[in-house]
Amino acid sequence: MSAEQERRARVRLSHAVEPGDATVADRVTTVGALRVVDELLAGQDSRPELAARLKATDPERLLSAAERQGIRFVTPADDEWPSQLDDLAHGQRVQGLGGIPVGLWVRGPMRLTELAESIAIVGSRSATSYGFDVATEVAATVARAGAAVVSGAAFGIDQAGHRGAIAAGGATVAVLACGADRVYPTAHRELIQHIAQHHAVISEAPLGSAPTKVRFLSRNRLIAALSRGTVLVEAALRSGALNTANWADQLSRVLMGVPGPVTSVTSQGVHERIRNGAASLVTSGLEVLELVGAAGEHLVAVPRGPRRPHDGFSLREVRVLDAVPVARGASTASISNVACVGVLEADRVLVALADAGLVRLGVDGWRLVSGGGRS
Amino acid sequence: MSAEQERRARVRLSHAVEPGDATVADRVTTVGALRVVDELLAGQDSRPELAARLKATDPERLLSAAERQGIRFVTPADDEWPSQLDDLAHGQRVQGLGGIPVGLWVRGPMRLTELAESIAIVGSRSATSYGFDVATEVAATVARAGAAVVSGAAFGIDQAGHRGAIAAGGATVAVLACGADRVYPTAHRELIQHIAQHHAVISEAPLGSAPTKVRFLSRNRLIAALSRGTVLVEAALRSGALNTANWADQLSRVLMGVPGPVTSVTSQGVHERIRNGAASLVTSGLEVLELVGAAGEHLVAVPRGPRRPHDGFSLREVRVLDAVPVARGASTASISNVACVGVLEADRVLVALADAGLVRLGVDGWRLVSGGGRS
Repeated sequence: MSAEQERRARVRLSHAVEPGDATVADRVTTVGALRVVDELLAGQDSRPELAARLKATDPERLLSAAERQGIRFVTPADDEWPSQLDDLAHGQRVQGLGGIPVGLWVRGPMRLTELAESIAIVGSRSATSYGFDVATEVAATVARAGAAVVSGAAFGIDQAGHRGAIAAGGATVAVLACGADRVYPTAHRELIQHIAQHHAVISEAPLGSAPTKVRFLSRNRLIAALSRGTVLVEAALRSGALNTANWADQLSRVLMGVPGPVTSVTSQGVHERIRNGAASLVTSGLEVLELVGAAGEHLVAVPRGPRRPHDGFSLREVRVLDAVPVARGASTASISNVACVGVLEADRVLVALADAGLVRLGVDGWRLVSGGGRS
Repeated sequence: MSAEQERRARVRLSHAVEPGDATVADRVTTVGALRVVDELLAGQDSRPELAARLKATDPERLLSAAERQGIRFVTPADDEWPSQLDDLAHGQRVQGLGGIPVGLWVRGPMRLTELAESIAIVGSRSATSYGFDVATEVAATVARAGAAVVSGAAFGIDQAGHRGAIAAGGATVAVLACGADRVYPTAHRELIQHIAQHHAVISEAPLGSAPTKVRFLSRNRLIAALSRGTVLVEAALRSGALNTANWADQLSRVLMGVPGPVTSVTSQGVHERIRNGAASLVTSGLEVLELVGAAGEHLVAVPRGPRRPHDGFSLREVRVLDAVPVARGASTASISNVACVGVLEADRVLVALADAGLVRLGVDGWRLVSGGGRS
């Protein structure tokens, strides 16, 4: 059997079998596509429809039609195959779907091996402006760091992810639930065309096919499997983004969630995933890079807040400062009392603190300059 | 030595020694207040000021002055002593402070034993309206469930916590950094008076004393130690609320954080605590009750989102539904193809789905009724 025959067999299967059909995919992984095609044609499957559809597909015609539209078919035999997809072989299933795609239809100049470091950004189609802005910022930051942003070209967060990466001059990939030669949603024609022209549009679904729920669910598994980590920005309960999150979890990818107001339904799904420990809370693109990065790279310093004027004072000075009332003035004597230092010592320190603008002496005694010592 | 003498010794110490003076507090826990007073008067301490202040305090005068203002002095010898404060004995220190208070000055009818189930709600003094509203909701919910809300009567989240509990007809306690006979902040005079009249205002600081940073920090340790759990609603980095959080953590209390927009500085401290695993993310009062409640009580069902019309359909029906395109119509034949069911079967199911309002037959074939099948 030649590699070319195997390749054509995969083209036939990609058109005859629905994306995510784990039974067929697993069999292909085990015995190869050529043999699976023979088995199906021989009716060795409970679904005679498959044989009928295989007979109806002409790989030559499909490949040349694809070529005319600048679409290539990528299989595990190709150098450009993103090997992280092979993780899908290990029996992972979500809602009965799974398996390594028999092949990917790809439109665009980007080689899929560039997705090794990629980050998926997914979330609600009905995103709030908050979610849209945060997704854009996260996408721009990871794209600037050299990670391609993977998403589904949907309304809301998906769109923000793609646009953030593009605005930052980075790479982005759209994984579609319809054929790679089609556009969904049609309102995103320009966005998807731009991605196809400069980056890559990917689909496992047959050329010319329309999006269906099965194809959306299978597409979600590819988004999770292609990326090192998936960032949930906004996701209502039971949203498609949570399905992608389940895949990331199932595949041991890094799952991250950006929190939002607890009063926002579009953040409920994210908060639920953080609460149950499936997702790590992230608040910025840098934190995302920190979590997916190899140990050591992209380490984010724990935010410490602004330095305060009295950072690094002596313990004695701090004790005096801390003994100065905020509400009303106090005498040097009472401050020395509270601070447990001698009166002369207290007086010396108070004068220094006054020079530093932290306390002042009023008619009723010493008091903190507002914003000085309290926390 | 009589209990009365020990009690008077504690009154003297409470006025001569700053709240949170761990050295003195631990010594009192070990050998009792009477002996510690003798030791300090004998100059067995590096701080002669303490002896001077002890000499200057007259416990009889203080107790009668307190009584005139309806303030009582509660010590570990009293039935009403909140024994959870004894956890402060075990060497816990935050910023050098710690130890069991020698006594508490209490104004109000509530017995402190009622705080066994209490929840602390703390956060930013410069809260956003979002934080204020959430803190109010959380406080009202836990108060309705019978848990007293403990806070510091400060601006912002503290105030929302107290008001939420009061509005719900529940109990609330204000722990002050100034003397129990004083009011801070003065703008909250009415609130604090109300709490003193119907619940309890507590302070470890000497009567008549003004708030100082040391007293705020010591006060924070009491808020954390009195409660079963502490809820951080909004907290900027390095805010006082985070100091209370450190105490809750140190004392193995349940520490919880309410997330907010990552764009809000007042949520940064909360997000940081959730990220580093110190705090659990909570989005409602019920989730707070769930986390602090003994196993089994207050269990919150994982939110599942709204039931969908096709919940509970047969797998075959769902497969057909999932095969119906969202973007354009499709023929019964192509749907039966995608769904891998026979054409007659597909037709039968499609008609049923149309009756259920999930799909409709248009001029170009079957399509999903918007909002029907997608997720």
